[in-house]
Amino acid sequence: MTDSKKVKFSYETLYNLCMDAFQKFGFTKEKAETITDVLLTADLYGIQSHGMQRMVRYYKGIQKGTMKVDAEPEVVFETPTTAVVDGHEGMGQLNGVFAMNLAIKKAKETGVGIVSVKNSNHYGIAGYYAKMAAEQGMLGFSSTNSEAIMVPTYAKKAMIGSNPQAWCVPADPYDFLFDASTTVVTRGKLEMYNKLGKPLPDGWALDKDGKPSNDASDVLSNIAAHRGGGIMPLGGNTETLGSHKGYGNGMVAEIFASILSQGMTSNNTMKDNKSGICHGFMAINLANFGDTEAIKKHFSEYLQELRDAPKAEGQARIYTHGEKEMLALKDRKENGIPVIDKTMTEVKDLCDYLDLDFSKYFGDYVPPKAGDMFSGNY
Amino acid sequence: MTDSKKVKFSYETLYNLCMDAFQKFGFTKEKAETITDVLLTADLYGIQSHGMQRMVRYYKGIQKGTMKVDAEPEVVFETPTTAVVDGHEGMGQLNGVFAMNLAIKKAKETGVGIVSVKNSNHYGIAGYYAKMAAEQGMLGFSSTNSEAIMVPTYAKKAMIGSNPQAWCVPADPYDFLFDASTTVVTRGKLEMYNKLGKPLPDGWALDKDGKPSNDASDVLSNIAAHRGGGIMPLGGNTETLGSHKGYGNGMVAEIFASILSQGMTSNNTMKDNKSGICHGFMAINLANFGDTEAIKKHFSEYLQELRDAPKAEGQARIYTHGEKEMLALKDRKENGIPVIDKTMTEVKDLCDYLDLDFSKYFGDYVPPKAGDMFSGNY
Repeated sequence: MTDSKKVKFSYETLYNLCMDAFQKFGFTKEKAETITDVLLTADLYGIQSHGMQRMVRYYKGIQKGTMKVDAEPEVVFETPTTAVVDGHEGMGQLNGVFAMNLAIKKAKETGVGIVSVKNSNHYGIAGYYAKMAAEQGMLGFSSTNSEAIMVPTYAKKAMIGSNPQAWCVPADPYDFLFDASTTVVTRGKLEMYNKLGKPLPDGWALDKDGKPSNDASDVLSNIAAHRGGGIMPLGGNTETLGSHKGYGNGMVAEIFASILSQGMTSNNTMKDNKSGICHGFMAINLANFGDTEAIKKHFSEYLQELRDAPKAEGQARIYTHGEKEMLALKDRKENGIPVIDKTMTEVKDLCDYLDLDFSKYFGDYVPPKAGDMFSGNY
Repeated sequence: MTDSKKVKFSYETLYNLCMDAFQKFGFTKEKAETITDVLLTADLYGIQSHGMQRMVRYYKGIQKGTMKVDAEPEVVFETPTTAVVDGHEGMGQLNGVFAMNLAIKKAKETGVGIVSVKNSNHYGIAGYYAKMAAEQGMLGFSSTNSEAIMVPTYAKKAMIGSNPQAWCVPADPYDFLFDASTTVVTRGKLEMYNKLGKPLPDGWALDKDGKPSNDASDVLSNIAAHRGGGIMPLGGNTETLGSHKGYGNGMVAEIFASILSQGMTSNNTMKDNKSGICHGFMAINLANFGDTEAIKKHFSEYLQELRDAPKAEGQARIYTHGEKEMLALKDRKENGIPVIDKTMTEVKDLCDYLDLDFSKYFGDYVPPKAGDMFSGNY
């Protein structure tokens, strides 16, 4: 995601580091395992922006008190098919896994489980939770809201988060796993263009007056200072290319997250050192529609027809959703997980701060320009 | 939707015509009422492409035997939260209303109802069914597949339908009603540009080789002849603007419709005089997440914040989803429903064919160039 150099480490190396670090911060071994698994699954899927790169940001959240180490998710409303969970400002990953497990349990008993979570934090990749359900023979859905970054059609102020929706359904040779923000791109993409000094493609971002902008630096600083502007919904900023559709899909993610739970809507989250992030989860048992294997086979055949469809001129391959993640997973398991060296500098700082021996995990590797982010004003 | 002239008639006039016509074709009064309500609700919402304009096409479907007048939807698999319905090639509206009523019944009993329908026909506007659930204090969802028209990312052949998703959630002063195809635009939009002889905007359509095209006539004839090409997913034809996201959303619509029911996928529908269209329906009872009125109030406040957000330069208004439909409804009830005169010519032909007195409904109005579509080779 940046022009920095990358260095590769094995899953085990990063796992050991994460486990020790999260436990140093006060999480039990079991909780550290959950957080680590969500984090490193993002790296294994090739979604680097949500993996190791985020670890130090999570620590910062814990330090600032935005993320509470001792919080336990609490079911505050429940029926056999539904629940509302108060995350009590705990880690998003812990609230997310708790809530999706609850949805899966309900779906095993009734066919469907829907759980909405309030007062949580950033939960990593939405696809992780949807995939949990698919591994139980279910259709899995997960969405989250986030700090407002999407500018609704005809507005000039961000009012909706990047609000991803993830859908996962069992299939061969790999599950259908569709995990995407409802903005045209994520903030991370803008940051990458900014670091590279490249103009943004048309159709991505808006300046503080709500006009299209190709200036990544200006857009990012406006967002940070709440001066207006932000990222366009999928479909751009006019109805010609369907802006109202991306905006609508962002609202659907919001409804399952902050509306059903009566939690904070995106525009009110991440203020005054309080997160308020909300999530939504749904598990639908395929067995409640017929024979699970027959449904899976029917779907797998369609997915194969899609991959086999005639290619556009100049294109060699049509992907189905989840295929790229499985290709990345295979590559990362065989060849290691790439981490950008700037992230490794942060990890070194973190190890120093936590009194962990960096070399125990990473041997002779020395990251560039070690800083003092945990002692200074990072 | 065309450059034809429009003429306005009252809801009652069109209702009377539809009721008589559908009964002439063999539907009971009750069934005629259901079909008419779905059809005219589209017109009341300002979605002309799915209203009166479609009526003659439905008749053609019945004549050809694609739509079976005597079919009754049959529940072929059922649990307290779920069902699969075989539509037995009946009218999509009848199957749709039957299935959504079943989903609502289940949601009243268990909190959630999900019903997947196979072997159906075009069901009109997806939003009609989602709205049915909202009127019962529920979150409503509906999707359908359709004849393949969406070209998956990097393909050159249409493999997915326009596959709309509709979501409706109770709110004041109007429900949130998001009803949109998962393609960037619908085929109707291309037909409009073709009639006007205007070049298509960039980012809409692909030629038979999978290359972007602005030639509506060429694209439409390629689609009709199955030569390749079609409409881009929401997000265009490359990943830069999120093509894979529109493609993914189209797949979600497909999953609820043809995968859960094990019916025909879009690429296999509408062949050999058989429709095979499938639909998906979901009703989620807000009362199963807390106090319905409190949830509704929380959501309504957010929707108001969105409408009140600062406007982009040159824009006077930010809409929330469903607002335009409610504005159209008010206008149509006060000022009548606009129908293009070409449609009225078809209606005149239909009346002649069915031995109905056109002037009984439309008085002195004479549509242009009456044809002989029902006796000749229309």
